[in-house]
Amino acid sequence: MANFCLMLQYDGTRYNGWQRQGNTSNTIQEKLERILESLYGEPIDLNGSGRTDAGVHALGQIANFRIPRILSRYSCREILEYFNKYLPADIRVLGVEKADDRFHARLSATGKLYEYRIDCGEISNVFQRRYLTRIDEPLNIEKMRQAAAFLTGTHDFKSFCDNRRMKKSTVRTIYSIVLEEEDGILSIRYHGDGFLYHMARILTGTLIDVGTGDLPAGRIPAILEGRDRSLAGFTAPPQGLFLVEVYYPEQNLTS
Amino acid sequence: MANFCLMLQYDGTRYNGWQRQGNTSNTIQEKLERILESLYGEPIDLNGSGRTDAGVHALGQIANFRIPRILSRYSCREILEYFNKYLPADIRVLGVEKADDRFHARLSATGKLYEYRIDCGEISNVFQRRYLTRIDEPLNIEKMRQAAAFLTGTHDFKSFCDNRRMKKSTVRTIYSIVLEEEDGILSIRYHGDGFLYHMARILTGTLIDVGTGDLPAGRIPAILEGRDRSLAGFTAPPQGLFLVEVYYPEQNLTS
Repeated sequence: MANFCLMLQYDGTRYNGWQRQGNTSNTIQEKLERILESLYGEPIDLNGSGRTDAGVHALGQIANFRIPRILSRYSCREILEYFNKYLPADIRVLGVEKADDRFHARLSATGKLYEYRIDCGEISNVFQRRYLTRIDEPLNIEKMRQAAAFLTGTHDFKSFCDNRRMKKSTVRTIYSIVLEEEDGILSIRYHGDGFLYHMARILTGTLIDVGTGDLPAGRIPAILEGRDRSLAGFTAPPQGLFLVEVYYPEQNLTS
Repeated sequence: MANFCLMLQYDGTRYNGWQRQGNTSNTIQEKLERILESLYGEPIDLNGSGRTDAGVHALGQIANFRIPRILSRYSCREILEYFNKYLPADIRVLGVEKADDRFHARLSATGKLYEYRIDCGEISNVFQRRYLTRIDEPLNIEKMRQAAAFLTGTHDFKSFCDNRRMKKSTVRTIYSIVLEEEDGILSIRYHGDGFLYHMARILTGTLIDVGTGDLPAGRIPAILEGRDRSLAGFTAPPQGLFLVEVYYPEQNLTS
């Protein structure tokens, strides 16, 4: 089989998230698979590195598809150009590479970087408003950093997962949480080995609650220990969230 | 009279331009004047530095309004906050200052800076696509710079004006035209003493025609001399154009 890896960028505003949901929904995976089918003349499954929720954006989503070598008649360049010719303007394929046979966008991933962008300037941003969550109350970023330090490391993040029926392990490792403010925009970057359902958004809602003073930073350890979604903060809205990068062991890509 | 100067930012996408057009249209001036009227309890005229067309944006539009001192009961800060409380998210007041009695946003202006943004990257931009004009053909920026040099200076810009019934002088001075490309976005900055109807957009359309090779840069002097709109290039679409800054003699603002 030939195995192709795609790097994708999309504005999630108009979509019901990444994952295919049947014939009637409007998802990013479906848009891409429909174009793949028209390119190769037969249905092809596209594996994403993970689902992004409705309204969430991607700067560097990764996906792969496999095709029998005998059917693999297009170069990486041709595949890229075909996608970008037929995709709507809010989805772009940034790159196509040949991948190792065993490469799988989700199963091979070793980590992800998400960024949440908050508009906390004195005057709200006009031109980036679709990609920011506006917080009017002043945010104490130092306290948010203290809370972020408690969240970093290997923990059971059950309190930060909106899927109550999650039966698999809810233990994850967050390598770092970096908060940076510039020109009235606070970006929070989460680098972790994996993220539970809504995890980046609940982490953000919790940090915002700390920033506004509604929640003391020192309560984070008890929230983690409680393993109860109701202890953590709100689920921050999707429009501020970007999947920035997906990490893989180096040998997976044979470019 | 008290005289207040506003600095404004707006995303022009949803609006029929700056200028009030009656009761049924949707213009930026109307939005602002309606809020001024509700603040002071009587109709107040707002003077813009100039009209921006439907779909054109502003990073730093300037406007002023006068009010009898006896009615002037709000501070600059209160005026700013009232505007930003009631304006839609795509219009923001960035600053309010007291101005010299004689200051008039349009009549006192000595120059303007417009920027046109072109998406000429190999892969079109997902997140700024609403504020860019996409050009798929490769652009020869050196040739565009040669053409820009011919346009710089004091000329009769009648060929670059879409108002055929323009009876006043069509002579204007362009101090500089600066082209810069970064990350697949070409920005063209026009600094001039004033701009005719659609002038920044026709200049841009003409430079694009030079960039794609449809028009030799050396033809610009003849286009200027011809004083005929049909000689110049197309009128570039509004969504790539920003009014960046308006210039005044320093003594006008008494902040």
